[in-house]
Amino acid sequence: MVKLVFARHGLSEWNEKNLFTGWADVDLAEQGTQEAIAAGKLVKEAGIEFDVAFTSVLKRAIKTTNYILEYSDQLWVPTLKSWRLNERHYGGLTGLNKADAAAEYGDEQVHIWRRSYDTLPPDMPRDSEYSAHSDRRYAKLDDSVVPDAENLKVTLERALPFWEDEIAPALKDGKNVLVGAHGNSIRALVKHIKHLSDDEIMDVEIPNFPPLVFELDENLNIVDEYYLEAK
Amino acid sequence: MVKLVFARHGLSEWNEKNLFTGWADVDLAEQGTQEAIAAGKLVKEAGIEFDVAFTSVLKRAIKTTNYILEYSDQLWVPTLKSWRLNERHYGGLTGLNKADAAAEYGDEQVHIWRRSYDTLPPDMPRDSEYSAHSDRRYAKLDDSVVPDAENLKVTLERALPFWEDEIAPALKDGKNVLVGAHGNSIRALVKHIKHLSDDEIMDVEIPNFPPLVFELDENLNIVDEYYLEAK
Repeated sequence: MVKLVFARHGLSEWNEKNLFTGWADVDLAEQGTQEAIAAGKLVKEAGIEFDVAFTSVLKRAIKTTNYILEYSDQLWVPTLKSWRLNERHYGGLTGLNKADAAAEYGDEQVHIWRRSYDTLPPDMPRDSEYSAHSDRRYAKLDDSVVPDAENLKVTLERALPFWEDEIAPALKDGKNVLVGAHGNSIRALVKHIKHLSDDEIMDVEIPNFPPLVFELDENLNIVDEYYLEAK
Repeated sequence: MVKLVFARHGLSEWNEKNLFTGWADVDLAEQGTQEAIAAGKLVKEAGIEFDVAFTSVLKRAIKTTNYILEYSDQLWVPTLKSWRLNERHYGGLTGLNKADAAAEYGDEQVHIWRRSYDTLPPDMPRDSEYSAHSDRRYAKLDDSVVPDAENLKVTLERALPFWEDEIAPALKDGKNVLVGAHGNSIRALVKHIKHLSDDEIMDVEIPNFPPLVFELDENLNIVDEYYLEAK
């Protein structure tokens, strides 16, 4: 039996302001830092010993992962960062206040972009300060895989190779795994693990806190699923 | 031309108390945290863009590395942690106050243990709370490579494979490299890079701050060497 722990990053500075964030590399808010530290303490209290950690290349997830490892006394655990665990890229909505987006595009359209599995938001212009195409961290990727906008379907498609290449092999190797990531990249992986339909996954909300634990057998079937709680 | 930046961890809680530390996993002191943050700001001011970072499996070095990456806006840089970059293992002296060690073993003997290239300190007892043999992070290593005590010679011998397998290939590949490590593991690598004699290296002191930069050509010959300074 192995444990797979998903930790969505704690509250970010843009979550606080109700802005679409996506790939913008926004820091944790003070509350988010405290949530990440609390998550680390819950991991310690639960006695979970990780063998490997995976996170995105966005600082809010990396810092959350680091705080969890630090406060559970296992900062030495190998940690691999990948863009494939990034948040869903919110395209041209990035940096907009959710109310402003509704004013510009209409409530219904914004609702569809947020809640539809496979409708793409408008592309982010390539000259945006947030464009991944001019960001050094994505420079070694083929330009065709660097997104201008994503829906949950696309997020799953680019996260899945990381599941297959890194996370699933670690679990099958008997390793306990921490994934410190984002609302939609975690949702994408949860859809895959739980075999949820396109509709079902849209009703799943991943909270910033506490971490979500799956206990899995050697074929990665789910034996138990729960949130960490203070004892 | 590539840059190789060595950052010794900032002041630790045991540095503050003047205790032999070695492999004991001691946290940064508040001053050490501030040194690491300041080092990150110097890296940013110098415009150094890392491609990869290497650190030990001890939290004072990992946190220093993370602070440097965070405060130079590149926390996403891939970071590999290895026991081969750990501090010299101080054996049975670990946890002793330097004055107490002198009282127990004599000033001259302690001076030799600190200043001789190849004299080993007494072994750490296997039942010590600090023994690496009962530490989960070293459990996958062959027991014969897990030390009970090290001198600088042994520290270099176990650090060198990491230089050859990871650091040197990255540099030859044109990558800028951060090594966030410890006084003696950095000293060991500096001995190797600068072709220093066993005597010469014992006179080299690596400060906790600021970081030390080597600019290297494609054959890893030293073109320039300097400490980062505020402009």
